[in-house]
Amino acid sequence: MPHIALPEHLPGISSAFAFRPETAAPMRALAHILLYEPNSLSSGERELIATYVSSENDCHFCQSSHGAAAAAHLGDASIVRQVKADFETAPVSAKLKALLRIAGEVQRGGKNVTAASVSAAREQGATDTEIHDTVLIAAAFCMYNRYVDGLATWQPAEESMYTEMGKHLATVGYKTPSTGGNAQRR
Amino acid sequence: MPHIALPEHLPGISSAFAFRPETAAPMRALAHILLYEPNSLSSGERELIATYVSSENDCHFCQSSHGAAAAAHLGDASIVRQVKADFETAPVSAKLKALLRIAGEVQRGGKNVTAASVSAAREQGATDTEIHDTVLIAAAFCMYNRYVDGLATWQPAEESMYTEMGKHLATVGYKTPSTGGNAQRR
Repeated sequence: MPHIALPEHLPGISSAFAFRPETAAPMRALAHILLYEPNSLSSGERELIATYVSSENDCHFCQSSHGAAAAAHLGDASIVRQVKADFETAPVSAKLKALLRIAGEVQRGGKNVTAASVSAAREQGATDTEIHDTVLIAAAFCMYNRYVDGLATWQPAEESMYTEMGKHLATVGYKTPSTGGNAQRR
Repeated sequence: MPHIALPEHLPGISSAFAFRPETAAPMRALAHILLYEPNSLSSGERELIATYVSSENDCHFCQSSHGAAAAAHLGDASIVRQVKADFETAPVSAKLKALLRIAGEVQRGGKNVTAASVSAAREQGATDTEIHDTVLIAAAFCMYNRYVDGLATWQPAEESMYTEMGKHLATVGYKTPSTGGNAQRR
């Protein structure tokens, strides 16, 4: 049961966004820029970073919804499972692996990011903007994950609901409320 | 030295905001709503929550700048030092202490927030919106702190610079770049 009186029948962050639309607007705008707008990292790659960090933070709603968005972008759900299980052996580029290492350092705390891991990413072709965006995606999901779990939002168990949500997010992004799944109808 | 080529002579988050103005806009807007806009929690109280979380995350720039903003709002810098040292014995209200306990739980991870600590805050008169905003301020500073430290931004040591920055933040809020201190002139 949520810690505060959140609107019912809205899963995860949607219920918190509906409770406080003033803060929802910039939080949606930030996710839209970081994950959806054109970027030299594909949306699929950026959603994998978001999914990995959410998995490390043990946030069911975020790792499921962003994992489904990554799968929709990439056309392959197995990559998502492999990245969460062990990204070092997953079928992703050496550059993305180097960026995922940085994301993991940020998740454990900003001071954990080392010059060596940044150099390693640069050696694989990562630009300063890609390194910046990786750090900020990881930092932002340390916010979104804590928001979702810190309010004890309702997080459905059905994978099918997240699949629908992921398709929606991969199609229209984050600026407006998702309509994926019956659970989200108002 | 910063991990990427951030603009020089801008301290802390200002340099990251200048590097990527697209993401700076929603990040500034979120801080402005959470810390500056009218709220049943005073700006001084909300800046104390931000300072406490930044201190727990060991982020020098954020705990110094928001600590200075709290001091400017409250007209008393000693309260800030006492909250960082041990808020349980600091001269703040029982309600704020209960909210600081929740903020600490969020800082350690969203799942750490207990129904008992939420009930305790409610018994001290905290509303659902105040509990929501406390959770989100704490979650958001887990982002800002990781962003500032994860990029290894330049963080001046001089306390006087943060004092000026705090006065500026307490006067105009977060929507536009701070001009506190010579270090930030462009």
